[in-house]
Amino acid sequence: MANERKLKLGAWIHGVGGGWGDWRHPDSLPNASTNFEFYRKQAQKAEEGKLDFVFIADSVSINENSSPHYLNRFEPVTILSALAAVTNNIGLVATITTSYSEPYTVARQLASLDHISHGRAGWNVVTSWLSGTSDNYNQKPHPTHNVRYKMAQEYLEVAKGLWDSWEDDAFVYEKESGVFFDKGKLHTLNHEGEFFHVKGPLNIARSKQGQPVIFQAGKSEEGRNFSAKNADVIFAGDGNFEDLKEYFADLKRRARVFGRNPNNISLLPGIIPIIGDTQEEADRKYQEIANLVTIDKALHALGRPFDDHDFTQYPLDEPFPDTGDLGSNSHQGMSDIIKRKAKEQNLTLRQVALDFATPKGEFVGTPEKVADLIQKWFEEEATDGFIIGAATPKGLPEFVDRVVPILQERGLYRTEYEHDTLRGNLGLEIPENRYAKKPIQQL
Amino acid sequence: MANERKLKLGAWIHGVGGGWGDWRHPDSLPNASTNFEFYRKQAQKAEEGKLDFVFIADSVSINENSSPHYLNRFEPVTILSALAAVTNNIGLVATITTSYSEPYTVARQLASLDHISHGRAGWNVVTSWLSGTSDNYNQKPHPTHNVRYKMAQEYLEVAKGLWDSWEDDAFVYEKESGVFFDKGKLHTLNHEGEFFHVKGPLNIARSKQGQPVIFQAGKSEEGRNFSAKNADVIFAGDGNFEDLKEYFADLKRRARVFGRNPNNISLLPGIIPIIGDTQEEADRKYQEIANLVTIDKALHALGRPFDDHDFTQYPLDEPFPDTGDLGSNSHQGMSDIIKRKAKEQNLTLRQVALDFATPKGEFVGTPEKVADLIQKWFEEEATDGFIIGAATPKGLPEFVDRVVPILQERGLYRTEYEHDTLRGNLGLEIPENRYAKKPIQQL
Repeated sequence: MANERKLKLGAWIHGVGGGWGDWRHPDSLPNASTNFEFYRKQAQKAEEGKLDFVFIADSVSINENSSPHYLNRFEPVTILSALAAVTNNIGLVATITTSYSEPYTVARQLASLDHISHGRAGWNVVTSWLSGTSDNYNQKPHPTHNVRYKMAQEYLEVAKGLWDSWEDDAFVYEKESGVFFDKGKLHTLNHEGEFFHVKGPLNIARSKQGQPVIFQAGKSEEGRNFSAKNADVIFAGDGNFEDLKEYFADLKRRARVFGRNPNNISLLPGIIPIIGDTQEEADRKYQEIANLVTIDKALHALGRPFDDHDFTQYPLDEPFPDTGDLGSNSHQGMSDIIKRKAKEQNLTLRQVALDFATPKGEFVGTPEKVADLIQKWFEEEATDGFIIGAATPKGLPEFVDRVVPILQERGLYRTEYEHDTLRGNLGLEIPENRYAKKPIQQL
Repeated sequence: MANERKLKLGAWIHGVGGGWGDWRHPDSLPNASTNFEFYRKQAQKAEEGKLDFVFIADSVSINENSSPHYLNRFEPVTILSALAAVTNNIGLVATITTSYSEPYTVARQLASLDHISHGRAGWNVVTSWLSGTSDNYNQKPHPTHNVRYKMAQEYLEVAKGLWDSWEDDAFVYEKESGVFFDKGKLHTLNHEGEFFHVKGPLNIARSKQGQPVIFQAGKSEEGRNFSAKNADVIFAGDGNFEDLKEYFADLKRRARVFGRNPNNISLLPGIIPIIGDTQEEADRKYQEIANLVTIDKALHALGRPFDDHDFTQYPLDEPFPDTGDLGSNSHQGMSDIIKRKAKEQNLTLRQVALDFATPKGEFVGTPEKVADLIQKWFEEEATDGFIIGAATPKGLPEFVDRVVPILQERGLYRTEYEHDTLRGNLGLEIPENRYAKKPIQQL
């Protein structure tokens, strides 16, 4: 059955780890974020576990207070192109902003990655929530949240249009007659929109999977509609079971409104499983990681989703302060979640900051417990799968060696790749070229 | 002796070949330009020959009359990142335009390639001479030649500034005390110029070779000064011995004017050697390739450096027509060379077009003849070396297997790599970080 629901798993390769203190762990490689051997081993391990994809996050604005994993890291398209050469089946998902780039170049780089990898490219479409980003680019000032989503929608339409420049069978390669391609199967986009003016055609053929797979992570109202309309995979950030169930139902409902088959849109929260032989060992491992973050760093971390707000001005052990609408033009979903949780659980600023810096989540325990939770969240329709992060270089290998086999034994997860394209492994069909059905027309 | 003049050799990997008819050759792979296995084999063969670098050309504007090698090809940064993962010593040179990109993104992608390859990245700085390029980007209209070079100069200064964001020893990784980096060794560029506004710092460390090696190819007055001021390697296009001797002397003179050691600037023409057991066999191989281009395609090819001028309107067998100043805002050097040669040799349009489509050059003959010419041009200071192109997939392997060993036997070319960085193999020093000597200052 083509649209049978299947558990999906991705690996979020973080370099030094997504936490502010992870690099201090005895197991950590502090230079991991620019260490190709580290990325190669992690990606090959993820492929050994038959994971659907590796995921590379990104941002393009730092200052001296930024987290270690932001300060010094590979650019996503380059590291994924290199990983394409040393892997065979796993998807390669690059985070790229639509607010500070040109659609012709990005569509082209993604198409090139898609050809190099024989159809394994994915694009996590982001709109750059850090207002400091505009300092590094000629576009000033930083567009508002609403404008960024309008830009992203138009940008994505341009990219998809460019990816259809050539029909699948456009290149005929008739050496004798000298016909390199069929002129009726080359199409010029001629896009003139509110934000972008792009003629085309793109100077690269369609790939084996047609077009790169679209990922998205927006949680705001605009973000949810953007996802439901455009995305193949939604990266949900973290979140608890009940919130995700609501999000899952909401997203599938919105997908139906946009006329899409909800099974073709996957909701995947990011989790950081911490695995021990016993619950106690796992708890101890979590605490060891949490203890690496000082309260100073935790306050800086917390400032980020609130427009780099300085939280050191408030008393640490009093209730979380009123921050007004800070963060409303950036990562709205995240600042709202933090404020709600602080209020519901009556948390102090110190508690909020430390919890934000190293959220514990539920996925801390024995391999069986983690597998049970994965099964429950998937079967009870809170998620379609997970994106697996890690605080140390051992995190992903432990998940692959200890949790994936349990999921495979239970028949929940593949034991071999079904396809060699990302789209194929995610159960998505190759999108038809928009021009393919129309009568042949001249350029 | 640090600055002993050494012969330098690069491999220009073309995909289907740089000629309009190359793809029709019986040996050709018509899909080579998006065939990763082809690129991998060519790059590994070049590395087997101890060549200094592989070079990837680029352009970002096509239409239905474009040459096969423009229509469908890898984007340079992505293919070179993939090649970084399957090679060890050879340099990786990407062509990227400064007229249609953002310096923060390009500096970052090149730095990322430089880290992935452990110090083997190079950047061929181009300004996009095809006026149609602006149709694919938001910047309108296409800047004039003069403005493009002013933009390129400022862009390069921004990129170099961003590459100095972190001093070499900025990252200290003190796990116990929690000091990830030395704040005195992080520097913010704060560039506010005529064309670019870029704050920085860049979110990636300096690489093993300090900064990517700068390539450039301009032949106009602005181009020559830009090269002499900024470039480590100049790609000279083709050209004959006498022209190159003049260019060589002129470039080294200009370099001295800019206060540079002329031995740190290499002039490398692109050549397409065609090798046979005898001169007759080599001539036959050349003619076989030339015969693959029809006069229609040759006229289209010729139009490109003349602002896509339509040459089909003129009689074929009469003297080359007067084209006024067409091409003066694009590839000025090339249109001037064509016009001068047509006039000097009293050529018809047909002759000019066919010669332009498949220039024969001198490097057609036995391996010994090709090696002799390389030696002569190098020793008599017409060049510092060559960038080796090829019309078919066999061209580079033939050069590596048959010509390189002769050069090695004569002591003209290395038998092992001296270094594992591009800068090291080219005999260039690592540029000092601009901030390294100054007293430590806060961000």
